[in-house]
Amino acid sequence: MWQLFQFPLCPFSRKVRLMLGEKGVGYELVRESPWTRRDEFLDLNPAGQTPVIVQGQVALADSNAICEYFEETIDKAPMIAGSAPARAEIRRLVAWFDEKLYGEVVRPLMEERMLKRLVHRTSPDAKAIRDAMKQANAHLDYIDWLLDHRRWLGGPVLSLADLAAAAHLSVADYLGGIDWRGHEQSKQWYSGLKSRPSFRPMLGERMEVIGPPDHYDKVDFWE
Amino acid sequence: MWQLFQFPLCPFSRKVRLMLGEKGVGYELVRESPWTRRDEFLDLNPAGQTPVIVQGQVALADSNAICEYFEETIDKAPMIAGSAPARAEIRRLVAWFDEKLYGEVVRPLMEERMLKRLVHRTSPDAKAIRDAMKQANAHLDYIDWLLDHRRWLGGPVLSLADLAAAAHLSVADYLGGIDWRGHEQSKQWYSGLKSRPSFRPMLGERMEVIGPPDHYDKVDFWE
Repeated sequence: MWQLFQFPLCPFSRKVRLMLGEKGVGYELVRESPWTRRDEFLDLNPAGQTPVIVQGQVALADSNAICEYFEETIDKAPMIAGSAPARAEIRRLVAWFDEKLYGEVVRPLMEERMLKRLVHRTSPDAKAIRDAMKQANAHLDYIDWLLDHRRWLGGPVLSLADLAAAAHLSVADYLGGIDWRGHEQSKQWYSGLKSRPSFRPMLGERMEVIGPPDHYDKVDFWE
Repeated sequence: MWQLFQFPLCPFSRKVRLMLGEKGVGYELVRESPWTRRDEFLDLNPAGQTPVIVQGQVALADSNAICEYFEETIDKAPMIAGSAPARAEIRRLVAWFDEKLYGEVVRPLMEERMLKRLVHRTSPDAKAIRDAMKQANAHLDYIDWLLDHRRWLGGPVLSLADLAAAAHLSVADYLGGIDWRGHEQSKQWYSGLKSRPSFRPMLGERMEVIGPPDHYDKVDFWE
């Protein structure tokens, strides 16, 4: 059985978990708090970041290296499918969500609402949270736009682009950073993802000290 | 013919150019200064970043999506080769260099020594440059360590991991941020890469206003 080193609000671990769930790969969770910089974990991944996934002598780090590994080794539920340009578009969007959505929205929310409470023991910066929520709105606009042109974010079928976006948005949503009003396409798309068996287990998990808003784990979250 | 939108000191464009060079894919350079945020370029890539590569109706953005595209479509000179775990290790290292080496060394050097001169018209921050050079030293230590254990950075054969590392180091070296002393393994490895036909054309190119140190374009750069 694979062991996945992660913590409940790690968006990159969530992306990998959605991938593993869609592909039907079993794994057990190992709680890792990367901010403690535990020596044994740094030996597994010098970057000191979750997720890392281990089975026997195989230890894989970096969420995209992990996703590509399972895409290559498990035929079920291809998540980077289609022609070479279609695959490039999926990967472009994964990078977009991993860099832009994470960097502009998820990382500042995690810093202000999770790490400052859990690790640094300081007060959150209200302006940083407002800025992140404003950026979140722009990202939902882009997702609405993609869904106006495509059935799923990366093209005609569910792909790693959807899993990456949903992983990041789910963490931002847990941290109260998403205002879904006015984003009907994004809401319906996200509601569909939330109801998938790959997604549901994560919605029940909680990070110590910090609770999510009421709508967080409800599939029909806007009524 | 592919058109590659880039500027001379873009490390991610250099990674793609090394890949295209190794694979023998022809392309022409189109100069793009992403900091001007040109509308037509933002239409090609909403992230506003180089590289973007275009041929006919196909426009690809994000350096790793581009590299994976050419790895999939051009059999010559595989750069993500081997078993699935070996490929995951190559991708882990590419992410390491693209995130850590870039974020800790290349981006601050580009900010202080290129953008502040070319765009912001302010003075560089000497402490930021010292910090970047200190981080560069730590990265060379890690590359030395990898080369103590492997023929190439990602394993027994030349891979995208080498191209990514060399692309970032070449920009840092151009900007005077690399002190090669005490890093014999890294120097020999980098010297070998510099002498490859895929690399040599880049060494002759110059960014306006900013010149490289004397050793920059010499293959035997330490004598």
